[in-house]
Amino acid sequence: MLLPIRVTDGKVEVLDQTKLPFEVEYYQVYSSDDIASAIKEMKLRGSGALGLAGAYGVFMASRSAGSVAEVRALGEQLKATRPTAVNLHKTVDRMVNGLSTDFRSEVESRLVEVIREQLGFEEKLGEAGAELIKPGDNIMTHCHSGAVAGAGYGGRALSVIRKAHEQGKRIHVFVNETRPYLQGARITAWELKRFGIPFTLITDNMSGFFMEKGKVNLVVVGSDRVARNGDLANKIGTYLHALAAKDNGVPFYTATSSHTIDLGCPSGNDIPVEMRDPNEVLQIAGHPIAEPGTQALYPGFDITPARLIAGIVTERGVIRPPYEVNLRLVFGDSAH
Amino acid sequence: MLLPIRVTDGKVEVLDQTKLPFEVEYYQVYSSDDIASAIKEMKLRGSGALGLAGAYGVFMASRSAGSVAEVRALGEQLKATRPTAVNLHKTVDRMVNGLSTDFRSEVESRLVEVIREQLGFEEKLGEAGAELIKPGDNIMTHCHSGAVAGAGYGGRALSVIRKAHEQGKRIHVFVNETRPYLQGARITAWELKRFGIPFTLITDNMSGFFMEKGKVNLVVVGSDRVARNGDLANKIGTYLHALAAKDNGVPFYTATSSHTIDLGCPSGNDIPVEMRDPNEVLQIAGHPIAEPGTQALYPGFDITPARLIAGIVTERGVIRPPYEVNLRLVFGDSAH
Repeated sequence: MLLPIRVTDGKVEVLDQTKLPFEVEYYQVYSSDDIASAIKEMKLRGSGALGLAGAYGVFMASRSAGSVAEVRALGEQLKATRPTAVNLHKTVDRMVNGLSTDFRSEVESRLVEVIREQLGFEEKLGEAGAELIKPGDNIMTHCHSGAVAGAGYGGRALSVIRKAHEQGKRIHVFVNETRPYLQGARITAWELKRFGIPFTLITDNMSGFFMEKGKVNLVVVGSDRVARNGDLANKIGTYLHALAAKDNGVPFYTATSSHTIDLGCPSGNDIPVEMRDPNEVLQIAGHPIAEPGTQALYPGFDITPARLIAGIVTERGVIRPPYEVNLRLVFGDSAH
Repeated sequence: MLLPIRVTDGKVEVLDQTKLPFEVEYYQVYSSDDIASAIKEMKLRGSGALGLAGAYGVFMASRSAGSVAEVRALGEQLKATRPTAVNLHKTVDRMVNGLSTDFRSEVESRLVEVIREQLGFEEKLGEAGAELIKPGDNIMTHCHSGAVAGAGYGGRALSVIRKAHEQGKRIHVFVNETRPYLQGARITAWELKRFGIPFTLITDNMSGFFMEKGKVNLVVVGSDRVARNGDLANKIGTYLHALAAKDNGVPFYTATSSHTIDLGCPSGNDIPVEMRDPNEVLQIAGHPIAEPGTQALYPGFDITPARLIAGIVTERGVIRPPYEVNLRLVFGDSAH
């Protein structure tokens, strides 16, 4: 396991993801406030990891709080750190709803449940996705959708890759570095090395070359949001890899959870794309690469249209087109 | 003008392109050997600039040499610095062929001719390409195909952009940073700023997003080699931008010279792609971004198939499909 949060000798410790891969530092946290800070400072990131953060945050709140009302208030503060993180919000609610005066032991057993479920979810997602992978496949991934963004097994896309590796399929992974924040180079590469999975790091603009040369058999990425029609929002650059995959007959998959499937959202056109700090484009790991004052833009995501997506891997299996029908059939009961 | 080589007070000076944009340093060269070193160390780069380097190199050789044979020998040394640089080889040959005992003055007048012709070529290329650009257009470019890679006006793609700007078309340019070597962020952005052309710097994986959003009207890039069928080899990443352009109805052009059109090469499959030092992928401007020992690959180019190319801008006008016919009609006499 590569855990984003762990308990060692009764101490709760958070992995500082901003320091990867050059320092692997777990530091002790003492309160739900510390967890909230870790989220705000991007030390904790990724949908699964934010779920765990919510669970651990409420757990730490329950230790210091004198009443259920106080636990709930601290839970709201945790939710406020990321107003759009669905898994964080759902998990905090689950941790605090319906607590009795025996809230400390209730929260503790819920924490254990959440961790078990999240890890079980990742294993199931991995099993569903690994069926798509043939022995000897070269798999491409983008950004980081792995263990420390999840509950520790493999997050989303990396659960699929890790499971295929564990099944002895002798896979090799192409990792796109994922500018500007370099999650691929810094975190995905670091995790693959620790899992013993062979990989090659490339820059984002090289994906087309390796597909043209027939070196890629399958693409699998995470996703931040999937619309009712199957369009998906994921880390900037995903759309280009999907285009290159289509042009070269390479199947493109996303591995995701029901949390990200938004049946209330008709299509990719309805997903707002957040514009982030353009200074990230002007520097790399803190070092400037362009003249000071250069104008830049940093859209955090792009939209990959459903027509480029061969399947959506979920804990309930691989959903195939037509997504408009099949997503509703499978997730119509649970999705929001 | 932004000259890759210049003469100031009788001194020949080379712009060290490896230091851009943080230092703009012209340093004096004293011999054809110094020019050869500048080429080998990437201080001088780009097809047009390498042509000038050949001309200046022979000029400096002619000053020190005692015979035509000696000039020719130094010319061969210049050619050997880049065995595949067609413009360098052609220009050196032109400078040294058929010299008489009066070689010093002959070489000097040929140098002036070469500089004038190269600048005239860039202006003509720019005029041909600028006809494609409408007032207010947003133009995307990749890598650096500009003034200091050329003779000083605008090289290839940037000659088109610069001419449109001079025609008062109020254009804006999206500059892809061009990992791993960052020619876009370091050199194209630097030149556009000096020409007063508004631009926005983005990472290579953002091109698809801005095309999806309808923010790009036209793409123009350089090219390293164009095959008989119109397939082209250009800086790694070009193919992805061409795919995104096609998917969004944005015309994709290359601006190039007859030197790069290789009618002897049937298609992109016949263009070998050079694999470069993978350490460039593992670092950015000298700073490591992945763990030491990480496996990486760095293909220098990719192949953009002719079906994605709306036109090939040359000094003889814009060539349209079918390229197999039209490239031969226009360049059948001169191309190699």
